[in-house]
Amino acid sequence: MYQLHYWPGIQGRGEFVRLALETAGAPYVDVARGPEDKGQGVPALMALLEDGPRPPFACPALVHGRRVIGQTAAILLYLGPRLKLVPAAVADRLWVHQLQLTIADAVTEAHDLHHPVGSSLYYEDQKPESLRRAQDFRRNRLPRFLGWFETVLARNPRNERAGVPRLVGARLSYADLSLFQLVDGLLYALPQATHRTLKKTPLVAALHTGVPQHERLAAYLASERRLPFNEEGIFRHYPELDG
Amino acid sequence: MYQLHYWPGIQGRGEFVRLALETAGAPYVDVARGPEDKGQGVPALMALLEDGPRPPFACPALVHGRRVIGQTAAILLYLGPRLKLVPAAVADRLWVHQLQLTIADAVTEAHDLHHPVGSSLYYEDQKPESLRRAQDFRRNRLPRFLGWFETVLARNPRNERAGVPRLVGARLSYADLSLFQLVDGLLYALPQATHRTLKKTPLVAALHTGVPQHERLAAYLASERRLPFNEEGIFRHYPELDG
Repeated sequence: MYQLHYWPGIQGRGEFVRLALETAGAPYVDVARGPEDKGQGVPALMALLEDGPRPPFACPALVHGRRVIGQTAAILLYLGPRLKLVPAAVADRLWVHQLQLTIADAVTEAHDLHHPVGSSLYYEDQKPESLRRAQDFRRNRLPRFLGWFETVLARNPRNERAGVPRLVGARLSYADLSLFQLVDGLLYALPQATHRTLKKTPLVAALHTGVPQHERLAAYLASERRLPFNEEGIFRHYPELDG
Repeated sequence: MYQLHYWPGIQGRGEFVRLALETAGAPYVDVARGPEDKGQGVPALMALLEDGPRPPFACPALVHGRRVIGQTAAILLYLGPRLKLVPAAVADRLWVHQLQLTIADAVTEAHDLHHPVGSSLYYEDQKPESLRRAQDFRRNRLPRFLGWFETVLARNPRNERAGVPRLVGARLSYADLSLFQLVDGLLYALPQATHRTLKKTPLVAALHTGVPQHERLAAYLASERRLPFNEEGIFRHYPELDG
């Protein structure tokens, strides 16, 4: 049984871990969404961040037996083989991890769109800075990130023309799930700019529409466990930042 | 023989890899600093980023035999056991990796101090935004990052009171080298704010002064291979951002 610790109310970075657990059908508790009188809820999350010999810097954190693991990409590195969401070869696993780290970089930039000055301030207090950063992101960074993933998909020799494109090998990996989530979030936050970019990255677009065909993932996405995107999370839709 | 690919002229993210290779005394070629007529220089770096079945998103990249690895933290994950810069236990290795990923997050924020709007613009074109971001960084993020590393050092049961503090176990790991580099860069970029914070994080300060006592590392730091910090790299000293 896995324990996932993440802030309730938003998908956030926890969602990348959730997608892997849900797709694999792995049993887990989403601790901070649970009842406090059963030792769950936000107090349990806060205790995890503060106590223990190796406290995570931030959420998400995964507890598995005696292990406490922070950092989204490290959690997925740990879970990948256990959930059968990576190929068997060591070199392939490191490549999947590299892809995940690059997705993490893109996620940070997507967050900083609305928080270019600092996380301690409200969006409303950094709006002029956000407008400038968003322009740079739409013009330069968004095409650069999705363009790179397009290249990775195009150069994966195991991709068949007919099926859903995969980033590594012929089977679904957690990097595919994470790229789906990145694109899904960007479509929510910046629909115009993202649709425009996806026209030039057809394999990324096909991955985004194809990945949710997975049965367990589809069931999760249709469930109440999948929170909607909102303006508290990483991907926020402020129309003035799109265009 | 390892090949390190990184932009010449700056320490940048390549320095985290260099410190590990140099401390271990591992043979490596710093490709982009080599002569073009021997197949090195920037053209070799550009080819690596563009060609091949699994092109890195950005530098640094490590080539080892047929392997091409991008993302600083993934490179160090790969090198750690080979350079004997991580403990033997799998759980410890994952913890060292987690520390490295958090250092990477801090490095990104240190970079964005002078580029809060976008990397495609000059600092001079985003100075008002930088002033605001730097204030938030000095007040909130810098104490938070170094405070967390202080906690990690204080809770490492293998640390002896007398010696140089270590983040994990009793021996030097690549995370120690990377934390040294982070603090060194912050002291260059924001000397006032960093000295002030280090007074409250004495173990981090002791790690920073103690780590360069390592003989091979000391020799590297005194060599011409160690480029000085400058205003082209990640850690830039703009006095108006300090205080």
